[in-house]
Amino acid sequence: MEQVRIGICAPSTPLYPEEADQLIALASESHPEAQLVFHDQCFAIEGHFAGNDELRASAFVELANDPAIDALWFARGGYGAARIADNIMERMESESHHKHFMGYSDGGNLLGALYRAGIGTQAHGPMPVDLRRNGGDAAVRRALDWLVRRDRSALEPHVEPGQNYAAFNLMTLAMMVGTPLLPDLKGHVLMIEEIAEYLYAFDRAMFNVTSHLAGQGLAGIRLGRVSEVPENNRPFGEDADQIVRRWCERYDIPYLGAADIGHDVENKVVPFGTIPD
Amino acid sequence: MEQVRIGICAPSTPLYPEEADQLIALASESHPEAQLVFHDQCFAIEGHFAGNDELRASAFVELANDPAIDALWFARGGYGAARIADNIMERMESESHHKHFMGYSDGGNLLGALYRAGIGTQAHGPMPVDLRRNGGDAAVRRALDWLVRRDRSALEPHVEPGQNYAAFNLMTLAMMVGTPLLPDLKGHVLMIEEIAEYLYAFDRAMFNVTSHLAGQGLAGIRLGRVSEVPENNRPFGEDADQIVRRWCERYDIPYLGAADIGHDVENKVVPFGTIPD
Repeated sequence: MEQVRIGICAPSTPLYPEEADQLIALASESHPEAQLVFHDQCFAIEGHFAGNDELRASAFVELANDPAIDALWFARGGYGAARIADNIMERMESESHHKHFMGYSDGGNLLGALYRAGIGTQAHGPMPVDLRRNGGDAAVRRALDWLVRRDRSALEPHVEPGQNYAAFNLMTLAMMVGTPLLPDLKGHVLMIEEIAEYLYAFDRAMFNVTSHLAGQGLAGIRLGRVSEVPENNRPFGEDADQIVRRWCERYDIPYLGAADIGHDVENKVVPFGTIPD
Repeated sequence: MEQVRIGICAPSTPLYPEEADQLIALASESHPEAQLVFHDQCFAIEGHFAGNDELRASAFVELANDPAIDALWFARGGYGAARIADNIMERMESESHHKHFMGYSDGGNLLGALYRAGIGTQAHGPMPVDLRRNGGDAAVRRALDWLVRRDRSALEPHVEPGQNYAAFNLMTLAMMVGTPLLPDLKGHVLMIEEIAEYLYAFDRAMFNVTSHLAGQGLAGIRLGRVSEVPENNRPFGEDADQIVRRWCERYDIPYLGAADIGHDVENKVVPFGTIPD
């Protein structure tokens, strides 16, 4: 059985060391061919972040440029990846082009920038931190199924060969709009998901993203789960599905229905670009 | 004393009718030359909004194109202006070009779009809803000082003739980035303020805005008040001033210090573009 070495770093916020131990124990049973290499930086703490910007960027660069590493897995989301994305991109060497990168939420900043630059392959999928969730072992096993075995049962069920895809947390994507991190999404099915945002903020971010992408040849939008929506003092008057349908109609973007992604244990893997036949 | 007719509509969320009565009573004492014309739409309620998109847009268009109206004052912020800005802009007739438009917060979407299109003059300043605040009568009197008398004591103290300015709520501005609502800010001093956002979200929006405006010849950024910041489970590690300084330094944008604007009764008026000598 061929070993697959997966480097893990935290471009945003930190893990607890015992979470790394739990993940290693789990993987040793379900994916014995996976060797998980946790960078110490995963456990660094500085203010909001898993270490300062330079530490987080350097850990990422070190793993991405290491020829002994096959894939780079983002430990956790939160916030912080946008702050280091340009620094990271400047330091990517040829070795990084052979890597697969996976994460979601705030990690979308790096997936987008890497995809835009054509560095390696990227997938929106579960992260080590998902072990914290009830039933989270299924999520991280699914991530490993894809990272280690390219097992297509891990994929979001609408992903088909020959079609381009990208997936993002909506707020993360909105904050990439107008910046050098946003890739060209022409011809892509864009899957989005959201957590812990008021519906008015969701609507506002949809305005930003669809208004920006209007006329850019998006193949369509699929809506993942929109969870933990806070109660507003006045009900918004539409649900997330109605909001997305309305913006898609307004800007002539095909609305393709639901996507099986979200900030939860059911979060399926969405590779960026196309998968082979 | 020349009468000044001020049309008031609500592009975002509604007022209570008694708030209109209070404002009319206040203005009749302090600014008897002002005639406040509240459009009925100010009091409409549909879901989150002061009436549906068509009603809000039509009320705005009606007042803006009415030759008997001198200025258009946005009743209140919240959310909703971005949804109707393109519709409004398409329906602006020549009469609207003689108007002055004032508001802030979500109303920044309309100020920005009107400024970009060169339709009328615009100012970021207090709104009728500010009467709800403790001491809010000073805020609305200041707004009337500017709307009715062009009294420069109402202005943000750093505003000087010959320099271009624009002012926005940061999150509103971030959601305009990459859309047709954002005006060209070359040569402008940009003043920003924020309310009720986590510092990580403030930082993220600063990434979006400064990364987008980098290299576009901004004259500088001034930071207004950042209020009602929610406590996060982990302290961010910087305050708002430090955050803005860091992003300005990173993208070579002059950081000019504080601005006397914010979601509060001290909120001073910032006319878009230049004021005459």
